[in-house]
Amino acid sequence: MNIHKFVMPEVIFGKGSIQQVGESCLRLGATNVLIVSDPGVIAAGWLDVVVESCRQAGLQYTTFYDVTINPKDSEVEKGCRVYIENECDAIIGIGGGSPIDVAKAIAILATNGGRIHDYEGVDKIHHPLPPQVMVSTTAGSGSEVSQFSVIVDTKEKKKMTIISRSLIPDIAIIDPETLSTKSAHLTASTGLDVLTHGIEAYVSLAATPLTDVQAKNAISLVAEYLRPSVASKMNEEAKTNMAMASLQAGLAFSNAILGAVHAMSHAVGGKYNLLHGDVNSILLPYVMEYNLLANPQKFADIALFLGVDTRGLSAMEAGKKAIDYVKQLAIDIGAPQRLADIGVEQDELRQMSVVAFHDACMITNPRDVTVEDIEELFRKAW
Amino acid sequence: MNIHKFVMPEVIFGKGSIQQVGESCLRLGATNVLIVSDPGVIAAGWLDVVVESCRQAGLQYTTFYDVTINPKDSEVEKGCRVYIENECDAIIGIGGGSPIDVAKAIAILATNGGRIHDYEGVDKIHHPLPPQVMVSTTAGSGSEVSQFSVIVDTKEKKKMTIISRSLIPDIAIIDPETLSTKSAHLTASTGLDVLTHGIEAYVSLAATPLTDVQAKNAISLVAEYLRPSVASKMNEEAKTNMAMASLQAGLAFSNAILGAVHAMSHAVGGKYNLLHGDVNSILLPYVMEYNLLANPQKFADIALFLGVDTRGLSAMEAGKKAIDYVKQLAIDIGAPQRLADIGVEQDELRQMSVVAFHDACMITNPRDVTVEDIEELFRKAW
Repeated sequence: MNIHKFVMPEVIFGKGSIQQVGESCLRLGATNVLIVSDPGVIAAGWLDVVVESCRQAGLQYTTFYDVTINPKDSEVEKGCRVYIENECDAIIGIGGGSPIDVAKAIAILATNGGRIHDYEGVDKIHHPLPPQVMVSTTAGSGSEVSQFSVIVDTKEKKKMTIISRSLIPDIAIIDPETLSTKSAHLTASTGLDVLTHGIEAYVSLAATPLTDVQAKNAISLVAEYLRPSVASKMNEEAKTNMAMASLQAGLAFSNAILGAVHAMSHAVGGKYNLLHGDVNSILLPYVMEYNLLANPQKFADIALFLGVDTRGLSAMEAGKKAIDYVKQLAIDIGAPQRLADIGVEQDELRQMSVVAFHDACMITNPRDVTVEDIEELFRKAW
Repeated sequence: MNIHKFVMPEVIFGKGSIQQVGESCLRLGATNVLIVSDPGVIAAGWLDVVVESCRQAGLQYTTFYDVTINPKDSEVEKGCRVYIENECDAIIGIGGGSPIDVAKAIAILATNGGRIHDYEGVDKIHHPLPPQVMVSTTAGSGSEVSQFSVIVDTKEKKKMTIISRSLIPDIAIIDPETLSTKSAHLTASTGLDVLTHGIEAYVSLAATPLTDVQAKNAISLVAEYLRPSVASKMNEEAKTNMAMASLQAGLAFSNAILGAVHAMSHAVGGKYNLLHGDVNSILLPYVMEYNLLANPQKFADIALFLGVDTRGLSAMEAGKKAIDYVKQLAIDIGAPQRLADIGVEQDELRQMSVVAFHDACMITNPRDVTVEDIEELFRKAW
């Protein structure tokens, strides 16, 4: 048996928990906070709630919201200048994965200096980061609990995956009420991202009993609650359970790491400004088919978690049922089906395969891959 | 829905993980560590392993091992003097619940001053504690991951329950190999303590979906692996799974708190120097019978987790099957069956009922209790 580690932030979960953000910062010794968000979060009104909470806690604060989807190195650098100019001593990220990943990246530069590119890969951060409180509003990225930050290198047009224990925030706040302002498309896209996290973590080479428990629950909750969550903004039970699914999938993949879907999706996201969840959900069934051979029993387990009746089936047969289920779920909730449909060009596939091959997430993929294998998967999904 | 919080230390789990204790302290900035253990741990050779790991990490260290089962206020005070005299700046606890609870209590006094009695109850600790690394060797107490420390007030002859976020260690190390030196009786006793943690956390008024997941797994693992673990010191699979059960039960009860079994058991443990797990396992079925009315469905769930066939049964009927299972398990592994058999005197029951009524663990018991109710439960178990 290997020695395995499991780390997570303090989690505050529930309706209204967003109002604890100011007090949470105070508890960590903050006096002057940089609040990182994006225009969508501001339009939905959630930045105001965070600002009011900071004000009530007697904190000074500065806001920064020049953040786009698939966030860029230049945005991190700009945010870091704002942090330093305003003499901040703590950082809040509020939103989906983009503002949270930028907030983490600013935290790195604030105390470690240099450029964000210096920290690509595993365990490159050597000085402690300022206190970090992350507020998730998407039930998708899991970044609020994970040791990941993914930032686009705009010159190389690729995503840099930064993995470090230091990137686990001090406190993660997950308020299901914030999900009521998401569009059906964003709910579908981020929900399929959660499913991808759960499945990739469960079959990862670095999976442990502690991550399996979290991945299993996340997968089951997505199967039960993603459809109703896409169907209605006001279904509070579905939103709460999708928020829980996102949290548990985040805990699973933060500790078990991911696999080929994310490696490939990062390569696509570096070139094209697409929703991460859309790319993942297109790739997921093809990568599952490829990986099935590596651990048929774990894929059969996934079928069970999804609620599929696998009685009388072999592990391989049950695993295939899991793949069918994932395809059907994406169709049911109107997710895009092919890379070509979302604007990916065929003549980029080869080069993206090379980039994906070198992504940190590929290390824990359960089946060996070559650049050619990746290219074939990309072609199938195109 | 309530807002709920979930907090845990960084966990390092697996065979050989005990050798990471020195490096773990180093990572937390320690230079001079107090190592708290007890004579049993020393006899089993585990203190030597910890000392060697600290030496290899270049740490200064002092050992303290005047710790007994149901550890006492006087032991905490003595340990604190050793900590201060040797100018320590971090603390290791190695052993079962006793050395770990003493290590935590020393950590409180080291930076907060006063007497340990000042901190009884919930959230009475106001200054940060020194870095704490806890190494569990019993698969029982869960103290290595919990926000609890339980210390005997020798003057009042009662257990003081101290509950605080600050008592969650920085790093918990769980090495299943350390379980191979435990006697069958200690394995049975601590294993039934794990079961009690899982069941009390699952039906606690403060249970959440995050604690339920951990409690469920802990209960299932005990049902599958406690018997073989008692049967053989060398059954590595059983030891590993009981260590995992203890960890998950610890995560569950640290965040969901406990109930009447622990409140009553603390009252007994304050008067009599008995194994905590023995007292718990005697009380558990009687308290389950009493609590069944408060949440029949959750007790029916427990029957399922234990592997009982509940098809066709009502929730009340299934809950009763869970109680039968727990009784039979205790018989199978030779656990004591009555309080009278382990030396508790009948004329103490009334006074212990009054003490149990005021224990912090009673607050989250799912069914209301009076002193008279407790006394009746004690009499049934006597």
